[in-house]
Amino acid sequence: MNLIVFGEDNLLPSGGVRLRGEQAEHVARILKARPGDRLEVGRLGGRIGSAVVARVSRDMVELEAPELSAAPPEPLGVHLVLALPRPKFLGRLLQDVTAFGVKEVTLIHTARVEKSYWASRVLAEASVDRHLLLGLQQGRDTALPQVRQERGWPGFRVEVLPELTARGPLWVAEGSAGDSLPSALETPTSVLIGPEGGLIDSELQDLRRAGARTGHLGPRALRVESATAAVLSRCLG
Amino acid sequence: MNLIVFGEDNLLPSGGVRLRGEQAEHVARILKARPGDRLEVGRLGGRIGSAVVARVSRDMVELEAPELSAAPPEPLGVHLVLALPRPKFLGRLLQDVTAFGVKEVTLIHTARVEKSYWASRVLAEASVDRHLLLGLQQGRDTALPQVRQERGWPGFRVEVLPELTARGPLWVAEGSAGDSLPSALETPTSVLIGPEGGLIDSELQDLRRAGARTGHLGPRALRVESATAAVLSRCLG
Repeated sequence: MNLIVFGEDNLLPSGGVRLRGEQAEHVARILKARPGDRLEVGRLGGRIGSAVVARVSRDMVELEAPELSAAPPEPLGVHLVLALPRPKFLGRLLQDVTAFGVKEVTLIHTARVEKSYWASRVLAEASVDRHLLLGLQQGRDTALPQVRQERGWPGFRVEVLPELTARGPLWVAEGSAGDSLPSALETPTSVLIGPEGGLIDSELQDLRRAGARTGHLGPRALRVESATAAVLSRCLG
Repeated sequence: MNLIVFGEDNLLPSGGVRLRGEQAEHVARILKARPGDRLEVGRLGGRIGSAVVARVSRDMVELEAPELSAAPPEPLGVHLVLALPRPKFLGRLLQDVTAFGVKEVTLIHTARVEKSYWASRVLAEASVDRHLLLGLQQGRDTALPQVRQERGWPGFRVEVLPELTARGPLWVAEGSAGDSLPSALETPTSVLIGPEGGLIDSELQDLRRAGARTGHLGPRALRVESATAAVLSRCLG
């Protein structure tokens, strides 16, 4: 947590901020904050600044009314389309993607995504929100990404794909033959990362027919987390 | 595991290969391989090909003598210098770095690395080797990286740093001000990734004095795993 991000629920009538749970624990145990210390804080969806610690207990931290003057960093102009990964890795991946500044994520189903993954508790709203918040706190940002779930390929192909390609280029990180992905991708752009095991031919055909361009990330198969960071790196400028 | 990598210890007098432990479990439980199935295999430090499954039991898999004809992919010409990360993340990071094709890793101590990290069991030779092997199997490669540990900054500064800068450029991923890291880094090169919390000024001065160039990865603070993948992505071409 490089920045403590609080929401409306954390506000006290005094204008102060009350932290509980993971945030309070982090401030008390990891930062070892004491009354009088100044912390970097940001308001969810709002501005960034600092606040003075007023009270620390084991499960609760109170901050005095924060001074918020700086705007959060510019969004990364990338719509990330991600084949739903193994639930074990999804939470971390949502954090990482958020820390990169991505504001639009669409999780999709493809032939090589196991259907059972869609039943994971990690996809519940509260869980997704928790990981997005952790990502904001890592990346010192306050603007939550929108995460959409498209549980069937036909729905994605018919409804989402035309939207994406109408707005700008769509890049697909794929394979190890042919051209490599350009080392700098201009934003705004959409990028699609397939599942472990890759997209199947008919999916690639659908994407190419819709105007998507494909490129690889070298001769080796990368984990989804590495591939995602590798592609987003090329959008950072 | 996209490729089963075996070593001398796995060889049978017949020329066949016996897998145990994690590898056997993966072949039996995840791949659900049966006698007669063909698997992609590679010999540690050698060539890549395939082998036919001869026998499968709960904790042991035997393959017939493999046919190995293809060379492993070209090494990535990057010497990665990494401030020792939190042990919890080190194993995964070694896997990822190996999957990217890095063949030289130096783990270093910096002011913001907790000294206790160096006592971690993850740094034991058997543990490091296990993670490197998992990385090779992810990246379909057979050539193990060399991992060096430099437990003090002065030793690194005096002995390693001049070697690195004599051989080629040294890039340091650092901060969010100034220039961004070039989107394409020519190889061979060395890259240094600092600790969570960053390098301190005197470390940066040492590096710059030795000829290192610095650049950032956008306005947000990335986790070490993301920053590492982001930098290596720029070396892939």
